[in-house]
Amino acid sequence: MYYFDNSATTKPTPEILNIYQKVSLNYFGNPSSAHKLGEEAKALMTSARKQIAAILGFESNEIYFASSGTEVNNWVMQPILKAIKQIHPNRNKVLISSIEHPATMKQIPLLESLGYQVELIKVDANGQIDLAHFETLLDNEVLLVSVMGVNNEVGAIQPVKEMATLLQKYPQVIWHMDGVQTITSQIALLREPRIDMITLSSHKFHSVRGVGILAQRQRVPNMPLLHGGGQETGRRSSTENLAGIVATSRALRKMNEIQADTKERLATYRGRIIETLKNLDWQVFAETTSSEHIVCAALAPIPGEVLLHALEAHDIFVSTTSACASRSHQEHATLKAMKTPDEISKSAIRLSMAHSTTDEDVDYLLKTLEQVTEQFKNYA
Amino acid sequence: MYYFDNSATTKPTPEILNIYQKVSLNYFGNPSSAHKLGEEAKALMTSARKQIAAILGFESNEIYFASSGTEVNNWVMQPILKAIKQIHPNRNKVLISSIEHPATMKQIPLLESLGYQVELIKVDANGQIDLAHFETLLDNEVLLVSVMGVNNEVGAIQPVKEMATLLQKYPQVIWHMDGVQTITSQIALLREPRIDMITLSSHKFHSVRGVGILAQRQRVPNMPLLHGGGQETGRRSSTENLAGIVATSRALRKMNEIQADTKERLATYRGRIIETLKNLDWQVFAETTSSEHIVCAALAPIPGEVLLHALEAHDIFVSTTSACASRSHQEHATLKAMKTPDEISKSAIRLSMAHSTTDEDVDYLLKTLEQVTEQFKNYA
Repeated sequence: MYYFDNSATTKPTPEILNIYQKVSLNYFGNPSSAHKLGEEAKALMTSARKQIAAILGFESNEIYFASSGTEVNNWVMQPILKAIKQIHPNRNKVLISSIEHPATMKQIPLLESLGYQVELIKVDANGQIDLAHFETLLDNEVLLVSVMGVNNEVGAIQPVKEMATLLQKYPQVIWHMDGVQTITSQIALLREPRIDMITLSSHKFHSVRGVGILAQRQRVPNMPLLHGGGQETGRRSSTENLAGIVATSRALRKMNEIQADTKERLATYRGRIIETLKNLDWQVFAETTSSEHIVCAALAPIPGEVLLHALEAHDIFVSTTSACASRSHQEHATLKAMKTPDEISKSAIRLSMAHSTTDEDVDYLLKTLEQVTEQFKNYA
Repeated sequence: MYYFDNSATTKPTPEILNIYQKVSLNYFGNPSSAHKLGEEAKALMTSARKQIAAILGFESNEIYFASSGTEVNNWVMQPILKAIKQIHPNRNKVLISSIEHPATMKQIPLLESLGYQVELIKVDANGQIDLAHFETLLDNEVLLVSVMGVNNEVGAIQPVKEMATLLQKYPQVIWHMDGVQTITSQIALLREPRIDMITLSSHKFHSVRGVGILAQRQRVPNMPLLHGGGQETGRRSSTENLAGIVATSRALRKMNEIQADTKERLATYRGRIIETLKNLDWQVFAETTSSEHIVCAALAPIPGEVLLHALEAHDIFVSTTSACASRSHQEHATLKAMKTPDEISKSAIRLSMAHSTTDEDVDYLLKTLEQVTEQFKNYA
């Protein structure tokens, strides 16, 4: 199998599954229990928090665990936004990039029904937010800015430093980054000290499903999305998914340890893939602005799904848009925001890599892309 | 180790962890992906839904997956209640038993701030809801009734049949049951056909952490708590925790297969434990009304925490109140609702069993209870 759909989900490593299993069996106590088993479980939670905080440049008491990136984005845009609003009742604006994941975008109608004024920040043809437009939207009415670090559909890396500079004039504005696609090769983006909140998702970096991470500076007010037993200092009740949290902390440390090597290898792979695609007359998107692990390209007029299944016939797995959009056949939202004509964007596919991607995977992919493209050209 | 804290959390079985590991490795594709790996993952989701539905007496398309029992209870009391309210704008009452888990109770201030009229249903000295009081609260103003099947602190089984009879006059009233404590020996409670919604939590029946189940009849309207990629037919977005879901479906089937045996064995164990405790002058709560797996008793004036740690010194693990309350040293909410004087309830501990509890565990527990009780009597 040649798996090029790592932005949809990654395969957990045997090491991670082994940690998961060990913790599940040996530390099965409820961290809220008053006895020794509870204390041991709680200690593991604390060290996972420390390790994650160190990588992100946050304090351990600024790391909270939830069940998914989607849950964290809903937590940020609903109760946390409400808590921010209570401190700034005179402010009402929320700035969201026009290329956010559905976990953010699909909340907009709810936010508007609650009376917030939501403004979408435009992006340029390379999938990066239009800084001039961002600057015009920034004022003292703004409560929250939410812009992802790396786009999930075309891979565009967002101009974090420049955003930080523009935000200097607005110290009260809370800045949230959906960092779900940053871990493979762009962890450094998360370390911009001006960022107030970060969302991460375990299954995007070879951990098990079901762990979302919210990193939130002390200065940001909070309200719980889930009310109950008072776990996570009352901010996110539910019995802690200890095994998943410990495994995820280990997976994140691993990604951080091998980041430089992954970055370099995937950059080379990405260069080779793009060169081949361009020689075969594919249109490549966000060519110069994308994360090392994502290539998004189109072979118009062949529909993306046809390309996906043609590659699948060769045991290569890719996606058309984001996994979340694939099954529901949504339009390619990011390419639309980049003003790509529909007749081209409907032909787009996404190839997404991970540290586990090998030379052999890429050699096979390139060879197959040549065959498949020729096939379609003959029918064109 | 002699583990008598199964109501806090259970130890996952090797079989379940093995299933979890196999699915994580062999079916790691994102169920939302359009390719074969996505299709395979989706097929596993569908069969898990079928199997759970068959056990609960629901349709497969009435089973939804979330991350915890707490999340499901928050989903029910917030967006789902809002959806019910939209259909019955003239209704405004929510009836909640006075002994619900914090995952329900802690939402009351929020519900009241949203304008709902929340009424607590009284319980009797045995921890069962007062049916006469329930009847007086029932009228055409009621949107939702939420009563747990088995109480988590004293184990009291609620009078589900009698509730169903009282609800016959009110077909529009939606009935939710927090069934988190029912799986060990009271699954039958969940099969009352009048129940509209059920909450279950994976880690309470020897599965992994992180899977909550909402069973919801078609007729009940729904709104999502988490907005995003549109998973769970748009009702609960987040990449599906496939391995956890498949493992949980297997764990639930297992609990159902061995239910009769578990029920019989735990009833015997419970009888022996209660007999010993009474001979040692402990006060036993909900003696005649409790589920086979829970014994709640007090040795006043010795504080529950002192008893807990005295037993811990003998490698026996119990809890004072619910795990969620233990660390925060909350009062024993259920005993308070049962009108137990504080000076007695503060001496209460909970012993909770599972199918994995053995004769040897119980023999050792009884011997140790005698020693520990003597110890304290000498100091009294």
